[in-house]
This record gives sequence, structure tokens and C-alpha cells, in this order.
Amino acid sequence: MGLTICDVGPRDGLQNEPETLAPHVRAEFVNRLADAGLPRIEAASFVRADAVPQMAGAEEVVAAIERRAGTEYSGLALNEKGYDRLVAAGLDRVNFTLAATDSFSRRNANQSVEEAVATAGVVIERAELPVTLTISVAFGCPFEGEVDPAVVADLCERLGAADELVLADTIGVATPRRVRRLVERVSILGKPVGAHLHNTRNTGYACAWAALDGGATLLDASVGGLGGCPFSPHATGNVATDDLVWQLERDGVGTGVDLDALVETSRWLAGLLGRRLEGYLYRAASWPAAAR
Amino acid sequence: MGLTICDVGPRDGLQNEPETLAPHVRAEFVNRLADAGLPRIEAASFVRADAVPQMAGAEEVVAAIERRAGTEYSGLALNEKGYDRLVAAGLDRVNFTLAATDSFSRRNANQSVEEAVATAGVVIERAELPVTLTISVAFGCPFEGEVDPAVVADLCERLGAADELVLADTIGVATPRRVRRLVERVSILGKPVGAHLHNTRNTGYACAWAALDGGATLLDASVGGLGGCPFSPHATGNVATDDLVWQLERDGVGTGVDLDALVETSRWLAGLLGRRLEGYLYRAASWPAAAR
Repeated sequence: MGLTICDVGPRDGLQNEPETLAPHVRAEFVNRLADAGLPRIEAASFVRADAVPQMAGAEEVVAAIERRAGTEYSGLALNEKGYDRLVAAGLDRVNFTLAATDSFSRRNANQSVEEAVATAGVVIERAELPVTLTISVAFGCPFEGEVDPAVVADLCERLGAADELVLADTIGVATPRRVRRLVERVSILGKPVGAHLHNTRNTGYACAWAALDGGATLLDASVGGLGGCPFSPHATGNVATDDLVWQLERDGVGTGVDLDALVETSRWLAGLLGRRLEGYLYRAASWPAAAR
Repeated sequence: MGLTICDVGPRDGLQNEPETLAPHVRAEFVNRLADAGLPRIEAASFVRADAVPQMAGAEEVVAAIERRAGTEYSGLALNEKGYDRLVAAGLDRVNFTLAATDSFSRRNANQSVEEAVATAGVVIERAELPVTLTISVAFGCPFEGEVDPAVVADLCERLGAADELVLADTIGVATPRRVRRLVERVSILGKPVGAHLHNTRNTGYACAWAALDGGATLLDASVGGLGGCPFSPHATGNVATDDLVWQLERDGVGTGVDLDALVETSRWLAGLLGRRLEGYLYRAASWPAAAR
């Protein structure tokens, strides 16, 4: 099975930046990523605007996207209401996210893990769209500390009717061997498995390779390494899509993404936000020169 | 065979920073690393002071070090004169470095690769000290572009009488699979193999893991990710020792290093230089809290 890269910059990236970009700018961001050949883009988050103002106007974002053949447009939902809005907006896939710990679940989604599991079950049952199920804080929780891999594996098993299972290192504490082991453990459920990694402690790219070694077929990333983590003030964002694509392609893993267009998108974003992004490739330049 | 981490901050780190620190400050840096339990420290570089002013006074640095039992103090040499100075200064090991390409060799050491090989042979033959042989630009050259792994493997084979062979990604263009393959290829010579990695394009930590997978027993790193690369203005430094130790220990690879003392050394350095270092761990904090 090939590898799918999903750029979550318009969602996980922007929701952790201090600025709130207008819906038409976020749609332009999505369009630039689609033009770069991203096979999947997480375009919007259907959460409460008062809780995450950066994600307000999700419907407007989706309406302003110029759909590109070959690109799958997904969105995030934490509950049935979000899911209904997402379907009505016309996205292609739902990323239903629940946390591995009660503390994180209550703060992030105002519900217990068991309540979230029940909702996820309903959404998967209704299933108008492909459902990605993402388990956040799967490698560690800012409130509860260590997370038992057995708890994560059990959640995946109970919700194994989803079309895809994603293990998210929300706060950037995963390490390669732990990632590989958990990916392998969840892979026995027979569904495609993905990893969502933050580079907070410089483990993100090593974990991405470890996830691939473990059999992962989806990697979330965010162009330029956009984003951060609201629970860790010095946290950096997701692994940078450009940095990830560069190293994967150089090592023979095809991504289908146009690296030059991706680097150009990082530069556009850095200009838009008026600051340096965390990604290194757009600053250090691709290599060798022929690939610049 | 266990893993040895060598902190090259006092050498590769400082030689690529704009400031020139006084020898007694560099000795204090070395002493702090020794107190953190680093098994090996590259303490000084015996090169021409007019070529690398940051490394001037290598003898003074070595004289001011408070030797700690269990720590091996090494230094860099590019020619016989440097080697003689290093032996006279009383270090424990020489890191003799030569480049894989003529263009880099001429600019960095004013000699062809063949001249450097001949000198390396003489140094290995004289062998008062253990000799680490480092091949720089082993994964790519800023002047010649791609470097054929066969050229690097051939250099290692010709100089296989050295006590240790290190593959250096001087400009940060290595990728994990290439690193693992080259480490495996050189390992058949039967000598301990190491990797010296820069994180310029966010591949350094993934490459470190790949090197371990390939059988490497030595990893160079620089506390706080100190350093850069004179041939790449936006380049970041070596992989950060603190970030590397944190992830290795969390994944069950023992390093013998005191992480708290290492993080404290990064903070001391950041204060000394008056700027943020590239390493993430000293900013993001260790995790879980108990390990802080």
C-alpha cells in the first residue's frame, strides 16, 4: 500500500497560531496545497467558534475551495453536530478525533472518553463519508502524563469499524520505538494506520520513519511546520510537510507532492504571518541544486 | 556493543558560531559536559588559528580542562602538524578528518583527498593514540553535489587500520535509508562505525536512529544543537545532544548521560551567547514531569 501525506496546516497548523486568518485566505491556503499535489488536505475544523476562533467560518472556507481532482478534502469533528456540519459543507472525509485520556477529552471536547467513544460509534455507523479515527495524546498527555499503549490499542479495537486509525502525538513526546510498536500493534486490526506527529522535542521525523517501518500508510504533516500546541508554550508544530517530503523522496518513498510548490507555500505563509516558520527546508533550500 | 555519545560542541559547535570564546570559557564548557557524564568530548581543534580563529589556543583549552575519570577527551586534526600538537597537548584520542571530495578537501584542508589519505595513513601508522577517522561530506558536498557511497566506502577500506570510522554529514543532506546503508556497508570492515549528523533539513535525528539500526556504536552530537555550517548560511548545527539523549533513553538506549545536567549546559550556553539555541528539549522541557 502506498503512502498518503495529509497536510493538516489549514486545521492543526492554523488553530495553534495566534492570528485568525479570514476564511478566503484559509481557502487560498488549501488551494495552494492542492496545487502542490497533496493527496489529502485537512481543510477545516467543525468545532465551536467560541472555543477555537481560528477555525470559525469552516463552511465559508469549504465553499471557497476550488476543488482539484485527485485531492481528498477532509475536516475535523469532535461530536455529531460537527460531523453534521462537515457533511453539509460537502467535504470528502471526516477526521473524528477523540483523546486517550479523560482529562484531555474533557478540556478539548467537554466529554469523557466513554462519551466520545459512543459518539464515534454513532458517526461510524452513519458513515456517509469515509471516517478517519484519530486518537489524540496517544503517546502522552499534558495532564495525565504517560499513556498506556494498551489503552490506545483498546480504543482502536473498539472503534475498528472506522476506515482508518491515526495515532496522534499531540504534545510531541513520542519516540521512534514507541511509535513503531504502537503502529504495529494497531495494524493487526486490518485497517490503514496513520501517525500524526509534532516535532516539539525533535523526534517527529524519526517517528515518521518509525511509523513507516511499522506499516503506517498515512502521515499527517503541516507545511512549514506551521502550528504549535496550546498546552506547551514552547512547542513547535507538526512535522513540516516540505521537510518530510524532501527526505522521503530522497530515500525512494514516493509522495506525489511537488516539493517546489510546497516550499513556495511555506514562503507565502511566512510572509503572510510575518515570521519565520519552524520548517528548515524552505530556509536551507532543497538539495542537490538541480532539485531547487 | 554499547553506544558512545561524543559531544562535539566545543569543537564543531563553537567553530561555526560567530563569537570566539576565550580558552578558559571553552575549558569550562568541556568541564560541564564531563560533569554531565559524556563518555567522550571533542575538546579542541588543532588547526591554523588564522583559518579558524574560534579554535585558537587549543593547547590552552586542554591545559585548563579538569580531567574527569571515565571521560575520553578527543581533538580534531587535519594534518601531521595538528596531530603532533594534539599529542603534545595530552588528549586521549585524535579525530583525523578528511573529506570525500577534492573540492571540499582543498578548501577545508588545503590538500587533495589523496594527500589527506596519505597523511591519515602516516598518523594511523604512528598511532600513539586511538585514531578516529572521520570522512566529511560523506553524504553530499556543497561544491560537488552528490557523493557516491562507493567513494566513501573505498576511503574507509583504505584507511581501515584506524580504530573507528565515522561518516559525517557535514552539510545536513543525509537521509535515513542512505545513512543506514552506508553504515552497514562500512561496518563490514570490522571496526566500530559512527555517524556525525547535522539537522539542517530536519533529518538528523531520523538519521541517528537509522545509523543505530545499521550498527553504529558512536554518535556525534552537540549540546543545544550548537553550531552551523560555514557553507550553508541557514544551516543549523549538529543534532542536539540533549534532544538525542532524551529520545534514546526514552526508547531504552542507555547513554550514561545526565540529561538534567545537559539541559543546564544548554541554558548556560544560551545565556553566554545571548541567543536561543537550535535544540528543542531545553526549551520544551523534558517529559514526563518526573524527569524534569
